[in-house]
Amino acid sequence: MNQPPTATGAFADRLVEACEKCGTPACVGIDPVLERLPDAVRAGQNNAAAAVGAFAEGVVHAVAGIVPVVKLQSACFERYGSAGFAALERTADAARRAGLVVILDAKRGDISLSAGHYAAAAKNMGADAATVNAYMGRSAVEPFLEAGLGVFVLVRTSNPDAGELQDAEFAEGGTVSERVAGMVAELGAEHFGERGLSGVGAVVGATAVESAAVLRRQMPHAPFLVPGLGAQGGEVGSLDAMTRPEGGSGGLIPTASRSVLYPESSGGDWRDDVRAAATRFGEACAAALA
Amino acid sequence: MNQPPTATGAFADRLVEACEKCGTPACVGIDPVLERLPDAVRAGQNNAAAAVGAFAEGVVHAVAGIVPVVKLQSACFERYGSAGFAALERTADAARRAGLVVILDAKRGDISLSAGHYAAAAKNMGADAATVNAYMGRSAVEPFLEAGLGVFVLVRTSNPDAGELQDAEFAEGGTVSERVAGMVAELGAEHFGERGLSGVGAVVGATAVESAAVLRRQMPHAPFLVPGLGAQGGEVGSLDAMTRPEGGSGGLIPTASRSVLYPESSGGDWRDDVRAAATRFGEACAAALA
Repeated sequence: MNQPPTATGAFADRLVEACEKCGTPACVGIDPVLERLPDAVRAGQNNAAAAVGAFAEGVVHAVAGIVPVVKLQSACFERYGSAGFAALERTADAARRAGLVVILDAKRGDISLSAGHYAAAAKNMGADAATVNAYMGRSAVEPFLEAGLGVFVLVRTSNPDAGELQDAEFAEGGTVSERVAGMVAELGAEHFGERGLSGVGAVVGATAVESAAVLRRQMPHAPFLVPGLGAQGGEVGSLDAMTRPEGGSGGLIPTASRSVLYPESSGGDWRDDVRAAATRFGEACAAALA
Repeated sequence: MNQPPTATGAFADRLVEACEKCGTPACVGIDPVLERLPDAVRAGQNNAAAAVGAFAEGVVHAVAGIVPVVKLQSACFERYGSAGFAALERTADAARRAGLVVILDAKRGDISLSAGHYAAAAKNMGADAATVNAYMGRSAVEPFLEAGLGVFVLVRTSNPDAGELQDAEFAEGGTVSERVAGMVAELGAEHFGERGLSGVGAVVGATAVESAAVLRRQMPHAPFLVPGLGAQGGEVGSLDAMTRPEGGSGGLIPTASRSVLYPESSGGDWRDDVRAAATRFGEACAAALA
């Protein structure tokens, strides 16, 4: 039975193609903080939401064509209220128009109707996929799939205290992360693209080196979104354990934020510095996964 | 050492006082869905965000003085983008001005800087407290406390599939919910108000009757925000197991949404129907907990 992929499955194909086209699977995380914006951006805008939005759109245009994916950190925009939310919408729209795969990193974790509203919000914004928290159960994830979005479920995150809950072991075996990974694999089986990758992915931190191989065995077809590189101490070389056994593009999306957004200034246009930093990160990812 | 309470501890006092003033601890959940709005509201507004906002503000004014607390479901507003977010801001502001305790039900679950941004967003909006998802660890909760907000951490939720993860038992004993409850109790110990209640609370569904007594033993000083009454099948009478051993107001905040927002129409002004439904719910809660 060769059924056409679901919309979530089609997301997986779009991800594969975008990675192949750029020759790297690197993702730039756009999480702008007012205090770190280039002077040129801050000087030209008269409020925080506008400055953050202008910077984010500038980053989008600087990295388009160099990396295939951007991840927009919703919190950085929401802190400026409805004006910030409007800046997020403009950034997502700019990224979509620039041909980038857009992941809304909002880590939403509600259920049923409310999860459906969050999925609608991501969809309306033009996002291709969203990060989702499954603490409440699979009903926190399913509405995003019904909306045709790709998802990256938080499985093993990269923060220092992630293990307190996520690494705890169950009486019947396995950890909390592994239980969630099982959920990802099950949900993902209904959403394969034509290239063998599922549209139901997982967030697995680059710092979670010990868990990575086990999680990959549990989720052989899931794209892994991998934060924690650079500033958080994860190494690009540590990605080996996370690659898909059958290879192929799109299965591993390393993401970096601060090292790309705020590179050392060359003294010229800040966008050129961002573009150069994105190029370096993209090449490092391509080399590590070659 | 009698230190003054932290801002989060002061939230607990505000909660106690508000419950005492109204003679009931009932919370009205404001999660408006366009399709269910009264005709009078839909007719008067020319877009969905405006209609949802007008309804939400109408509910706020209808229930102020009758119940002490409202819970705003962020998803219902976000689905209408920045215009919806602006309606959420207006609703929160109206609720604060009306003297209601405002809980932002956004279930945010990010860490460190990003969690700090979410806390700032809640604070800027005028919320007193927020619901928080601790899957990523206590660093998902702490920034809300640093911002001086009350928090209600998702411990055991009311949805039918909540148990898949939350009731799973660890090798060293206890469930996932209980692990999170331990985190709530630890964090809460630093944030007592002057009335003995902590500003670090928990979401414990009314449908989780079997877990409730254990969770209360673990978190004797935490306010429980209790959804799942009415439409989801929980009974007000089932709240007994959740009351604080030392009694007192504010320790148990039963919340109802649909039964109050969409009561049977009397044929008169819809706000009068909402006010009457809130009164009934408030009285039922007061009677059950007397």
